[in-house]
Amino acid sequence: MRVLGIDPGSRHLGWGVLERVGTRVEHVAHGVIDVDLDGTFADRLVDIDDRLGEVIAAHAPSHAAVESIFFSKDAQSAAKLGHARGVVLLRLARASLQTFEYPPALVKRTVAGKGAADKRQVAMVVTAILRLGTPPRSDAADALAIALTHCNVVGFQAALAASAPARPRRRRANVP
Amino acid sequence: MRVLGIDPGSRHLGWGVLERVGTRVEHVAHGVIDVDLDGTFADRLVDIDDRLGEVIAAHAPSHAAVESIFFSKDAQSAAKLGHARGVVLLRLARASLQTFEYPPALVKRTVAGKGAADKRQVAMVVTAILRLGTPPRSDAADALAIALTHCNVVGFQAALAASAPARPRRRRANVP
Repeated sequence: MRVLGIDPGSRHLGWGVLERVGTRVEHVAHGVIDVDLDGTFADRLVDIDDRLGEVIAAHAPSHAAVESIFFSKDAQSAAKLGHARGVVLLRLARASLQTFEYPPALVKRTVAGKGAADKRQVAMVVTAILRLGTPPRSDAADALAIALTHCNVVGFQAALAASAPARPRRRRANVP
Repeated sequence: MRVLGIDPGSRHLGWGVLERVGTRVEHVAHGVIDVDLDGTFADRLVDIDDRLGEVIAAHAPSHAAVESIFFSKDAQSAAKLGHARGVVLLRLARASLQTFEYPPALVKRTVAGKGAADKRQVAMVVTAILRLGTPPRSDAADALAIALTHCNVVGFQAALAASAPARPRRRRANVP
């Protein structure tokens, strides 16, 4: 399983690719798409779409994970983020990637142990867990944290399925 | 000039195509894309993208006009609308359509004479101006109103340019 994590934004879009091999998680690549701010807003969306397409082509993920949208933002920020996120979800769907969404607090709790961890803590933990030489930029660190969350959730579910006792067969009612 | 007006939404997306011939505006077509709500949210975005692509292919517009985003909505609505609108702007840009944005109040004022006109008034005026047999559904009426606004703005600018007096040459200061 190769997971592409994405932290969407209309100016900077973080991405990170992890591979789950057995129960191990290995770092593949990460980066930040710094959107070209020269053109119109629509040009930015085209830029996001093109460059995310390149990331997908280069790293061939099998799954994707994106932060679920954060509704405490004001309407203007939510709308701008919505535009970028819409383009991201479209590109992932076009690439036939099964996409999972996780709330930001779950992502922080999964990697840093608490839902209120700040960006620096997330970056430090991601750097340590994935044994990265240098800490990634915060947008990429967030994307790696999202990918890591997906790997953990899948791992947890697999462990749960393996340890579950066989479900007892339902006893048939004794109809006289 | 053939204008595609769009009223974006994540459930219903209104569209209308008008042609400006000289100073006349003619109705070409209109409709509502009722998004398939069965799949995931990403599936809806794919549906919007596909079907808007079909509208563009069928009617070959040269320009597009979209309502600028309405920030008084709450963050959740703004984000949902943002996703749909992002996909719309991307599709229009991919089709190389020059896209113009107009605030809802300007659209209403242009077609119905006042910025606070309600949906029914807009639909009635659009039906009358474009001599439509039956009033379109409100999403399509809004889209036609947006296209009409663009035709009016372009017509107004053309009239202004034609009527502008030649700019007087600046008199050179009489240096002794």
